[in-house]
Amino acid sequence: MMRTRPLKVALLGCGVVGSEVARIMTTHADDLAQRIGAPLELAGVAVRRPSKVRDGIDPSLVTTDATALVKRGDIDVVVEVIGGIEPARSLITTAFEHGASVVSANKALLAQDGAALHAVAEEHGRDLYYEAAVAGAIPLIRPLRESLAGDKVNRVLGIVNGTTNFILDKMDSTGAGYQEALDEATALGYAEADPTADVEGFDAAAKAAILAGIAFHTRVRLDDVYREGMAEVTSADFASAKNMGCTIKLLAICERAQDGGSVTARVHPAMIPLSHPLASVRGAYNAVFVESDAAGQLMFYGPGAGGSPTASAVLGDLVAVCRNRLNGTTGPGESAYAALTVSPMGDVVTRYHISLDVADKPGVLAQVATVFAEHGVSIDTVRQHGRQDGDGEASLVVVTHRASDASLTGTVEALRKLDTVRGVASIMRVEGE
Amino acid sequence: MMRTRPLKVALLGCGVVGSEVARIMTTHADDLAQRIGAPLELAGVAVRRPSKVRDGIDPSLVTTDATALVKRGDIDVVVEVIGGIEPARSLITTAFEHGASVVSANKALLAQDGAALHAVAEEHGRDLYYEAAVAGAIPLIRPLRESLAGDKVNRVLGIVNGTTNFILDKMDSTGAGYQEALDEATALGYAEADPTADVEGFDAAAKAAILAGIAFHTRVRLDDVYREGMAEVTSADFASAKNMGCTIKLLAICERAQDGGSVTARVHPAMIPLSHPLASVRGAYNAVFVESDAAGQLMFYGPGAGGSPTASAVLGDLVAVCRNRLNGTTGPGESAYAALTVSPMGDVVTRYHISLDVADKPGVLAQVATVFAEHGVSIDTVRQHGRQDGDGEASLVVVTHRASDASLTGTVEALRKLDTVRGVASIMRVEGE
Repeated sequence: MMRTRPLKVALLGCGVVGSEVARIMTTHADDLAQRIGAPLELAGVAVRRPSKVRDGIDPSLVTTDATALVKRGDIDVVVEVIGGIEPARSLITTAFEHGASVVSANKALLAQDGAALHAVAEEHGRDLYYEAAVAGAIPLIRPLRESLAGDKVNRVLGIVNGTTNFILDKMDSTGAGYQEALDEATALGYAEADPTADVEGFDAAAKAAILAGIAFHTRVRLDDVYREGMAEVTSADFASAKNMGCTIKLLAICERAQDGGSVTARVHPAMIPLSHPLASVRGAYNAVFVESDAAGQLMFYGPGAGGSPTASAVLGDLVAVCRNRLNGTTGPGESAYAALTVSPMGDVVTRYHISLDVADKPGVLAQVATVFAEHGVSIDTVRQHGRQDGDGEASLVVVTHRASDASLTGTVEALRKLDTVRGVASIMRVEGE
Repeated sequence: MMRTRPLKVALLGCGVVGSEVARIMTTHADDLAQRIGAPLELAGVAVRRPSKVRDGIDPSLVTTDATALVKRGDIDVVVEVIGGIEPARSLITTAFEHGASVVSANKALLAQDGAALHAVAEEHGRDLYYEAAVAGAIPLIRPLRESLAGDKVNRVLGIVNGTTNFILDKMDSTGAGYQEALDEATALGYAEADPTADVEGFDAAAKAAILAGIAFHTRVRLDDVYREGMAEVTSADFASAKNMGCTIKLLAICERAQDGGSVTARVHPAMIPLSHPLASVRGAYNAVFVESDAAGQLMFYGPGAGGSPTASAVLGDLVAVCRNRLNGTTGPGESAYAALTVSPMGDVVTRYHISLDVADKPGVLAQVATVFAEHGVSIDTVRQHGRQDGDGEASLVVVTHRASDASLTGTVEALRKLDTVRGVASIMRVEGE
């Protein structure tokens, strides 16, 4: 049964995503009305530059006063696609206080202040949905929150940043160096002029915090996420990975400890076997692998960014929030009842691939092996070979069994003190085995 | 806030899936209660053989009278994991009439009578959820129904039967013939003693009907789904596929016609390029590729069957239905408002790989090419080669451009009438390009 009075939507931000949301609200108006049970009305669009012409948007709806828009009191749903912490946070809070529900695509804000925003939403009996904040169009928040609500998630392992995946894929497939691949990503529009948030892993870390919180029903703050960027990954690392039957991806990894009582969340480059489904994720695509007790291994794959894909996720949330509103209910809110401990990086247990430059003389391997043993790190394989340039150095590649990050850090510190170890060329974690 | 009065669950069927649902309801009772907002109580278990010992299930809950159980009137949710049409259909209907919501894993029933069951559920203001009916643990119904509710789905292309994927993967990777691969699948428990429902595509067709209905907001009946099994796929077909840079999968394909006004649904073996994400789906895994206007290309991957994965999907639905019940609401019901025409197979447009046995003499290719041209089927490539055995025959492999299935059928009929065409060795559709 169709209600004729429309639900009023306020749009905060009208950039790449916002303008696509507005466009689809118009072009798909009939479908959206059928699926919701009432028509949608775009009631206002808050922007910074009102003079810019926006195709298909009635200029009388455009305002620079976002605060007044969310305070109107007749808005059913506020769609926030401004990004960043402020003024988005204040606007969302004000929206709840004035009776609106909120759909947001703001990963940075949700990672930093998700708990506080959820609390305000709950206090006012409103919805806060944000499928678009993680991995663009890929349905991930909803499956984790709802489809797997009867299961126990043990691990979330994902490629959640398209820019870095594009760069790493380029390095892997063409042998390009990091800078060359980054330059191409920039030229093609996959990387921003300042790529720091992507290549240093800040973007992926925000998503990891959100995913870990939902997967483990535990509050995980951005500061709880260990973060390591991918700017130091070299062609030599890719060659090493190939030797291992692996490739290198920047991964967001959220894990429950084996005893079940604590969790960890981290972002760093890692080797994964070519046979792993994540290894074949190309270009700017995203994919997230989820392991749970009953379901086993699931993977969700798709475009992780871009105006249209992000708008698809925003509109899916908009339909859900509108349905809830018509039913006089709300969807599942924040679920942090499990309140597990978030352990530091030192507690993470995984395998490591370590490349050392060592003196090319007898006894070096024995010395190195002793250091690993003293720190309780068990060695899986060692490969040693002299250099072509005859400088008296050799390369030593050690792949370990599973060990804690703290043990590995201690091992590497001790290795650096050995006279025979000239340098630690690279340390790379090995995941997904 | 936790309600202390439990929600009562009746379980119909206690086989591989049902016993796992009961087990998880016990072992994860605290988590489920937190996520729902009230504890769950297993109020009754209907089985055929009550004497069978069922670990962890109170024998006093077990009954053979399923009808009496669903008529009790105090049951909040009925979980139907019996399978088949009757008595499942009557029991579900009776459950709605007596105030319960229903979670079902019954693909055959949903494909055949989904519309009628949805109508009864709606009449009584109850939920009918069935994530487990398609692709086991993989969240698919919920993403299509909810995450993509603001988007326009144009195609669903999936491997939705694990048994046939196991067999085809085995044929591809080892060169085994169909019977040998089927025997191995049977020995390992991937195929049932009577594998008809799987290998003839009945199981996949039921899932295709359900997926098409949800994706296109249109009622799609089982009879609307074109179905072709995979028992005739040969090692020679795999060799041909390899020559094309392809492999062979049994695909369920639901498509919107390019003019947008009609849809098709079909199940058949097809060649897909090795570069397509579905090509690397191994063993008994399932994966479904979804293409939509705004989101672009998404893929969902995971175990498509088995007790635990199916139970995970059932429990996710159970949590959702219980939350709805506590909120006094229901989730989205059947959505068939679009009411698009479901076109017959003849209207499907795709590419074809045709292997012909022809007389090894001049002029044959010209004859064959003329037949294709007369039926409006444009040829992409032709490969002709004489046989080693010198029997005066040659093989001719034709790959076409996109053409309707009706045109292709007409072409093949005419080819069979040519004196120089000794036989049509195989016809295989080429998808996913």
